[in-house]
Parts: sequence; C-alpha cells; structure tokens
Amino acid sequence: MEKLILLSNDDGIDAPGLQYLISFVKDLGKVVVVAPTQGMSGMSHAVTIESPLRLKKHNTIDNIERYSVNGTPVDCVKMAMDKVLNRKPDIIIGGINHGANSSVNILYSGTMAIAIEGAMLNIPAIGFSSLSYDLAYNMSHYEDWIKKIVRKTIDNGLPESTCLNVNLPAEETINGIQICNQSMGFWEESFDERIDTHKKPYFWLRGKFNLYEKEKDSDEFALENNFISIVPVKIDLTHHAYIETLRKQYKEE
Amino acid sequence: MEKLILLSNDDGIDAPGLQYLISFVKDLGKVVVVAPTQGMSGMSHAVTIESPLRLKKHNTIDNIERYSVNGTPVDCVKMAMDKVLNRKPDIIIGGINHGANSSVNILYSGTMAIAIEGAMLNIPAIGFSSLSYDLAYNMSHYEDWIKKIVRKTIDNGLPESTCLNVNLPAEETINGIQICNQSMGFWEESFDERIDTHKKPYFWLRGKFNLYEKEKDSDEFALENNFISIVPVKIDLTHHAYIETLRKQYKEE
Repeated sequence: MEKLILLSNDDGIDAPGLQYLISFVKDLGKVVVVAPTQGMSGMSHAVTIESPLRLKKHNTIDNIERYSVNGTPVDCVKMAMDKVLNRKPDIIIGGINHGANSSVNILYSGTMAIAIEGAMLNIPAIGFSSLSYDLAYNMSHYEDWIKKIVRKTIDNGLPESTCLNVNLPAEETINGIQICNQSMGFWEESFDERIDTHKKPYFWLRGKFNLYEKEKDSDEFALENNFISIVPVKIDLTHHAYIETLRKQYKEE
Repeated sequence: MEKLILLSNDDGIDAPGLQYLISFVKDLGKVVVVAPTQGMSGMSHAVTIESPLRLKKHNTIDNIERYSVNGTPVDCVKMAMDKVLNRKPDIIIGGINHGANSSVNILYSGTMAIAIEGAMLNIPAIGFSSLSYDLAYNMSHYEDWIKKIVRKTIDNGLPESTCLNVNLPAEETINGIQICNQSMGFWEESFDERIDTHKKPYFWLRGKFNLYEKEKDSDEFALENNFISIVPVKIDLTHHAYIETLRKQYKEE
C-alpha cells in the first residue's frame, strides 16, 4: 500500500522550508500537509485549550492536499489525526525549520513537538531543522540527505516512544550523517528593556545559547564539523540512574 | 545564608494553588513569586519571541515579593533570573498546578516547563501538581508533604540537568511518597465540531488520555494507589540504547 506521509511545521503553511520538504518527499508516498496558519516559533508542545480552532482547506500543489489550522504545531497533528486523515500515517514529519533545534532546544521547538507527538502515538516521526534562520536560504542541496533519512525511517521503523531530531548545517557541502547524543546547554537571557510611546517600560527576549560541554558524540559537535546530526529521541524523561539514590533519601526517616 | 526560593506557576498569579504553595514554603527561605498574569495551561515550554513582555510588581503578601509577566511560565523564569532576582535562586518551584502532570503530560505542562528551565540552569527545581482540576479544592493537607519534599531537595540538591515531577492525589488521606518512572501514554483526540453564529464550523479540543501500560514502578500506578509520585526528570532525551542500531543502519551502504 502507498505510504501515507503527514507533514507539518512551526513556521506556518507558507514557509519556504515546508515547500522544500514537500518537494523532497512527494515521490515517497501520499503526502498530506496540515500546518499552522501563521508562524509559531517557540511554541514548544503547546496545545490550544481555551479557544476554538478553524480548519481551512488550501489549494493543492502538485496534487498534494494542504490544510491549515489557526493553532500550534501540536494542534495541527491532533487535527490531522482526527479530522483530516482517514488512517494512521506511516510517518509524521515536521520542518524544514528555519533555525536550529539541536541540544536542549528540542524542548522549546514546535518542529520537534510534531515529531514527539508522533512518538507518543508510536508513529515513526522526524523533525528536520536547518541551521540557517534565513527564510530565503536555498535548501535544494538537502534533498538527497532528507530523502535518504525519510526512506530509512519508513523502511526500518523506530522503537516505541521514539522519534528523530535531525539538524542540517547551513553549508553548501555537507560531510555526511552522524548519529549523536543530545548536547546539554542553556540560554542566558538578558531582556532588552525599552520604553514605549506612553513612557512605560517593556521587555523583549534576547538570549545567548551556551553549551556546558561539546562532547565528541554530541549533535553540536557534529554540526560544527559540518555533518548532519541525527539524535534518536525517547520521550521517557525519567532519570533512571537516580531513582535508587532518591529512594534512599526518602527512606532515611 | 537564607535560601532564595523562586515560585511560579501556569495557572496565573492569582490561582489558589500558588497561594497554597506560598504559604507552605514561606518559612523555608526568602520567597519571590514571578508568575503569569493569566492562566497559561497547555503552554508547555513556549517562550514569547515575537511580542514585548511587561513586568508588573504586585502588592506583597506576608512580606513576599510578587511580580507578574504577561507571558508564559518559561518567560516568567527567564524574567526572574534576569530582571527580578539579584542572585541565582537555591530552588525553583512551579505549582501547585490544578490538574495532573503525570506520565508524558510533562511534555505539555507549563508547570513542569518551569522545573525543566531550572534543570537547564542546573538549579534544583520541582513542579507540583494536584490531581484535582477544581480551583476550589482544599490543598491544606498537602502542606507537610510539600514541605518535606522541598526541604529534602534543598538539603540534598539534584544531579545536573535534573528536576522533580511531583503529582499529589486528590484524596484527603495520602498513603505516602513513591519514587517512580514516568508512565507512557497518549491522548486520543476527538475534536468537537460546532457551528458558529455565521454558520461556519469550528473545533474545540477534547481528548481522552490513555496509558500504554501501568507498570508497578510508574507514576500512574502510585497515584492510583493514593501515593504522591515523584519522578526524577533528566532533560537528556537521547535514546542512548538505540544509537548503535541506528549507526548500523546508516553504515549499511
């Protein structure tokens, strides 16, 4: 049976990265797009609980069905599963994001929330992100790499509760693919304080990302060396190795 | 030196759960509250990138400084770190959430995003959630349990990149505390389709949470048996055990 491929993103249905993704995977199965009406960067795994959602059918491009939802990336996946698709998709893909989602940024990322939603449903899922934040960046040279990763994921499947976080260097020549660990890092914020026209202060988020360390097997290391990083992501956040220590602490009394 | 305790939540600065939390921890150190102006349920780890933020100082309660931010729970933590506190807090606490954040719901939870933000900064952090969704639920009987957990966390610290996900049963008599694994589950959505006054359809999110299995050491099992569940959460989402398999797949060619 023809493979059913669900695409979404967090930059909105008209973002160039999504059009590249459509063109790269359209020959691998039946593609359906359900994406946010507008850009939703930084929305993480947010869902719309307190307001109604609209589902809009767009014109097809290359015979591909396209829908938009006035909500978050996760809303789009949920809407697709319940109201658009007539069966479980064989793969769910988010992207191509305009900007990196490596390291702990997976936790802020709407693109990766799409893939994580797939992992919750035990449907193979991938989030693709380009290290270029430029909407005009030419992604044509990603085609063979992305086709290869999508094909392998469809063919081999993924373990339960698992998805892939794929980041692609913003360089013309890519050295290859590396399977990596998630780097650990943090954002160091310094809000920009400004004064509005009514002389009241407001703040605008401004941050600098810092890595704790750049291990050789980490995604940040691979990307710095111009490799595509693939981190297999499991949505079990339990710190298993710490459970016994914690149990002892609570048995002390 | 007196301990510095940062409190936030995702139900908004006026939510009863936060007032309970303030009253429970106010004797454990210097408490500062920075919470969203409004309820932010389902906001997950979202950050406000494309609009300005306002920081408002509220009147003190019991000499406790309180601030609100017109943003997400994570915005509040970032704003507190940069603009409110004059040093790193000794602990960051989110809650008490009106509603469960057990199992994979950690990924949707604004309360746990507060704790995860702490983990990124290597500051001990806890998210507390009550299984009662009722804003009028009397949480007084949580006091001793929550004090105990906060005290132990301040005294023992936490490993790097780690925080605690604590869920409390909505029962008068609690059997104790259990250190648990995160259960695996998923939301089965069925959007409610309605027609607006202009005869156009809209959808409202409605979901049912399903567990894949309820293992004996899991948080859902503990809660069902009327125990407080503590899951130590590590923000490394790498599926380490799958890396070698994936490497082989990509070496085949």
